[in-house]
Amino acid sequence: MSRFMVTGCAGFIGSNLVDRLLSDGHEVVGVDNFSTGRREFLSAALSNPAFSLIEGDLMDTVTLDMALADRSVALVFHLSANADISHGTKNPRRDLEQNTIVTYNVLDGMRSHGVRRIVFSSTGSIYGEPEVFPTPEYAPFPIQTSYYGASKLAGEGLICAFCEGFGFQSWIYRFVSVLGERYTHGHIFDFYRKLLADPDRIEVLGDGDQTKSYMYIGDCIDGMLLGIEKASAPVNIFNLGTDATIKVRNSLGLIVDTLGLSPEVVYTGGKRGWVGDSPLIHLDCSRIGALGWQPRMSIDEGVVCTLDWLRANPWVFEGS
Amino acid sequence: MSRFMVTGCAGFIGSNLVDRLLSDGHEVVGVDNFSTGRREFLSAALSNPAFSLIEGDLMDTVTLDMALADRSVALVFHLSANADISHGTKNPRRDLEQNTIVTYNVLDGMRSHGVRRIVFSSTGSIYGEPEVFPTPEYAPFPIQTSYYGASKLAGEGLICAFCEGFGFQSWIYRFVSVLGERYTHGHIFDFYRKLLADPDRIEVLGDGDQTKSYMYIGDCIDGMLLGIEKASAPVNIFNLGTDATIKVRNSLGLIVDTLGLSPEVVYTGGKRGWVGDSPLIHLDCSRIGALGWQPRMSIDEGVVCTLDWLRANPWVFEGS
Repeated sequence: MSRFMVTGCAGFIGSNLVDRLLSDGHEVVGVDNFSTGRREFLSAALSNPAFSLIEGDLMDTVTLDMALADRSVALVFHLSANADISHGTKNPRRDLEQNTIVTYNVLDGMRSHGVRRIVFSSTGSIYGEPEVFPTPEYAPFPIQTSYYGASKLAGEGLICAFCEGFGFQSWIYRFVSVLGERYTHGHIFDFYRKLLADPDRIEVLGDGDQTKSYMYIGDCIDGMLLGIEKASAPVNIFNLGTDATIKVRNSLGLIVDTLGLSPEVVYTGGKRGWVGDSPLIHLDCSRIGALGWQPRMSIDEGVVCTLDWLRANPWVFEGS
Repeated sequence: MSRFMVTGCAGFIGSNLVDRLLSDGHEVVGVDNFSTGRREFLSAALSNPAFSLIEGDLMDTVTLDMALADRSVALVFHLSANADISHGTKNPRRDLEQNTIVTYNVLDGMRSHGVRRIVFSSTGSIYGEPEVFPTPEYAPFPIQTSYYGASKLAGEGLICAFCEGFGFQSWIYRFVSVLGERYTHGHIFDFYRKLLADPDRIEVLGDGDQTKSYMYIGDCIDGMLLGIEKASAPVNIFNLGTDATIKVRNSLGLIVDTLGLSPEVVYTGGKRGWVGDSPLIHLDCSRIGALGWQPRMSIDEGVVCTLDWLRANPWVFEGS
């Protein structure tokens, strides 16, 4: 039994991780500001005495003091983030604050309280538009194309500097998009919501040929936990994704088939769905694979599973 | 004639650039908070009607509004920074604020005022401890080893995201250490100051085998201006340094010879002079070389020139 802190504990990945850690017999201190996190995702955790919730924003260092003081936290899963990659140009300061400055605050709070092990949810978006596919962790030094990627790259840099400067140990995971239960943003969410509003016609951003990789939430959590268990360098960086990719138009095809619909599809055109969108994301995951990790769910299965969950939980669309 | 803004205008590189731009017939709006900048470096500029000084800290966005409003600035040279790389672990928040958040503020201020061209002084330190020497701009994705490098990497990422998201154009220069007139921090400064205090004995951080590259300030400014003139991509990234390197112990030898001293030299030991120090910095500068840039001053000439300037300007040691 260990005690873990999870930032962003009410989010998609955070709440699934909390449930896993609790079911594995650990204690968890969760932190969330509920800006995008959902209290419903913590309903099981909140009834478990091994779970404590600190409600607060990590831009406020008092939140960290409350979460870390006198708790002997063994490791921090720093998952809180502004994950709304497609809206970066509308509010780039939010990425700076929630993804970069908050990461600094978490690191500095950990240092104050003698906690030195951190897991960070980074992103395949930090490769910008790479020239090598599938893209390995040691790809040529990329140029950033999104605020989200830039803000996560800054977070990675800060973590590495704390490892060198203060003896921290880190596991940095560069995720592809994650699918599964409690998925609350991304293309399946958007497509399903649009189809609920109009089952006969759907507009798709870009030309539909954007090619992405996805991973199931359970596989994602398995990968994170395996990396911590098996990798022991001061800085451990892993891509986490699947070997497969799917085009946006094919993902939509799977969604409409599952729903039994046949809408007219209108593509807005262009290689990118939004400014900073990557036309192709495909990560080389052989580094984590060499430790024994294999995703167990295919992209198609993940899409259908996500859709099933959204259909069973229509309340997640409220207020979105 | 153009109008340029220079942040960090009272610093080593900034004030030399201001003088060059003014002598080339341009107008310059300079910004400095005088935390490390020296008013003396602006004495010529301040008597030139083509120069305006805005005194203020760029953490305060009002400073940017004052500098950018109604001035039709063509391009911003964003040189202000906490350049004290060796003290990162003493105050890592300063790097975050002065190098990352300030860069965001500059970009956002430019966007508000319709200015979209930026030059950024980055650093060879962002390569961390690379495996390829000399290190090209497209080196494998590095791991950060210093707060300074991490904070500059974050600045680069933000700039690239503004180029993609808001149509900015940028010239990012990754410098080796710069030498020459108005040099006010770095190993020559430290060695000379120590030798002034005790000509018979000097302590050197590390084992003296740390190998670095240096460049003369005039060459640095030539390179920056040439890049702007010749490179026109949205994001233009250049290493700026010399093809040569020098070991710290040999640089010290040159200094004591020039001063006519023969002190006992005591090495503190270890491959690194401080936490996050790079044992070897040697950049591949062929990309800017292909545009026609060549440093005109050798490292040895640069060291002697710097020492001559420090000897002629003992006032720079006051208060340091």
